[in-house]
Amino acid sequence: MATIKDIANRLGVSVSTVSKGLNGAGDISEQLRQAVLDTAVELGYTTRQMRGKDRRKLCIFIENMDYETPEQFGYDIILGFRQVAFRENYDVTVIPVTPLFQSTEKYDTYMLRNGYVGAFMVGFALQDDWISQFSTTGIPTVLFDNYIKKNPCVASIGTDSFEGIDDAIVHLMGLGHSRIALINGSRNSMISEQRRQAYIDSMTAHNLPFSDATMPYGYYVADAAKEHIGNLLSMGITAILCGNDLIASGVITECNLRGYKVPTDISVIGFDDIPIAAKLNPPLTTIRQDRCELGKSGFYTLHSLINHVPISRTLLRPQLVLRKSTALKADNP
Amino acid sequence: MATIKDIANRLGVSVSTVSKGLNGAGDISEQLRQAVLDTAVELGYTTRQMRGKDRRKLCIFIENMDYETPEQFGYDIILGFRQVAFRENYDVTVIPVTPLFQSTEKYDTYMLRNGYVGAFMVGFALQDDWISQFSTTGIPTVLFDNYIKKNPCVASIGTDSFEGIDDAIVHLMGLGHSRIALINGSRNSMISEQRRQAYIDSMTAHNLPFSDATMPYGYYVADAAKEHIGNLLSMGITAILCGNDLIASGVITECNLRGYKVPTDISVIGFDDIPIAAKLNPPLTTIRQDRCELGKSGFYTLHSLINHVPISRTLLRPQLVLRKSTALKADNP
Repeated sequence: MATIKDIANRLGVSVSTVSKGLNGAGDISEQLRQAVLDTAVELGYTTRQMRGKDRRKLCIFIENMDYETPEQFGYDIILGFRQVAFRENYDVTVIPVTPLFQSTEKYDTYMLRNGYVGAFMVGFALQDDWISQFSTTGIPTVLFDNYIKKNPCVASIGTDSFEGIDDAIVHLMGLGHSRIALINGSRNSMISEQRRQAYIDSMTAHNLPFSDATMPYGYYVADAAKEHIGNLLSMGITAILCGNDLIASGVITECNLRGYKVPTDISVIGFDDIPIAAKLNPPLTTIRQDRCELGKSGFYTLHSLINHVPISRTLLRPQLVLRKSTALKADNP
Repeated sequence: MATIKDIANRLGVSVSTVSKGLNGAGDISEQLRQAVLDTAVELGYTTRQMRGKDRRKLCIFIENMDYETPEQFGYDIILGFRQVAFRENYDVTVIPVTPLFQSTEKYDTYMLRNGYVGAFMVGFALQDDWISQFSTTGIPTVLFDNYIKKNPCVASIGTDSFEGIDDAIVHLMGLGHSRIALINGSRNSMISEQRRQAYIDSMTAHNLPFSDATMPYGYYVADAAKEHIGNLLSMGITAILCGNDLIASGVITECNLRGYKVPTDISVIGFDDIPIAAKLNPPLTTIRQDRCELGKSGFYTLHSLINHVPISRTLLRPQLVLRKSTALKADNP
């Protein structure tokens, strides 16, 4: 359990400043007060005052995604959501789920029985039990990277894959690459299908060659590179887009093992910009999703649904972060 | 200039209650206080206190759209935007524009010279001068029914045409119709092209016949019906979707003139649900856009951009409002 001192240390301010921030004293700036509250939420520090009786309950269901430490993809999404939810007087519970968990009780029943007024779903797969129930639920629900048609109680939040992938391909073309592959995420995920389509659209628009063989599926893990890299290299691919930064790290490793250097022989681009991306060798060029903003936008979209504003979809812009894993295409080998 | 008494009359409360609401007195409910402030904004009543010096300036540029009275399409969009902007401490100026106005000064220059920190653009056409400048502007800008690629300072807000048009077509199929036309809005508008695609997608998905001739363009005015209705009737069309409620009102008039009854001979569906829709004879079935919520979501999206959250797109769900202008398809003539 975090203490006031932990918050003070994290922010580099005195314990009495933290105390003022928590108690709403007038003689610290609004900005600092908000930083104190945000950090208290992040560290799990709550006072009785902060747990007022009139706070409404939300939950975040999370599946297929790591979120426990700041290095992991889900951490900032959940943190951003919780920080803004707290400001708007909601309590948030994070509930890891499995397919088995979903089969034990219907979604609506679970929500009503536990007094949750809305939920944010992160990392669900299309074949999950609850996904089919979202078409008819009456509970305000926001899905990260999934989309449900025609139910005004459900909305979607995510990053625009089409712009991100086109930005990456345009960057690679500027470096002379034309044989560009995509090692995608998992099958059966809406976002993988979207990125596959984004790759097809962009390669078509720029008159670049592609086929099923240049866009295999991985599983969002570094090991996915092993299975595909030999085939891609033998096809003459000189640049590889990856479904996330972990796959990209595996691609760099596999290229090295086979005597190809990144970026001199092969350019590699990741997706997400998790903290590891900047620390790889070479530091990874990647399509950044701002996960903290995704979490915050997820909350605001849910807050809108709870207030009967039927938002269907909120999309954020990606940002291509240029580091050292892409370079001019080498002369023909 | 509105007075306190105008606000009191509109809300059906006493002048002293309005006064308490405007002055932030503690003995009226938060809900009533908000209603007083919302009405003050609607009627243009402001006190010196409400025009505080620290308020930031936004503007709404409006073109090709009527908005002066509650019956008109733009009125609620602007009202919703202004009401929530006021709560968040922004002042809003509404500026009607023309192509000529846009050619007199660059967008960024105009904004900076006048001290506006962001803008909401309503009713712009694709060929407008400023539209091309939005690709590179650094000013937070939200477009209603237009979309700019890859600029993180610009976002889009609108209603999901694909769901609305599919809902309408599914409703008509349930009534036995298969020969369904779309009299669309103006050419050169993003939203008309989107609805044309939505019609094509939905007709294709449901194996219904269509061609260029079944999806002509109108101009968002009632008179657009005159040009097309004869041709559509001669092709055996039994149901007509319209780009807005005004076109639908023209379709009803034209059908009557030619001896066809709505809905017994021809079913008609509008788009938007402006106040006139419920008062037509017969009352119009229409695809509702909640314009007040569009205005509010427009503000919140702009507020996000100003705070460096790179939202790309916010979409709202449409709602098919069933009235009396659709009916079971008549037996073959």
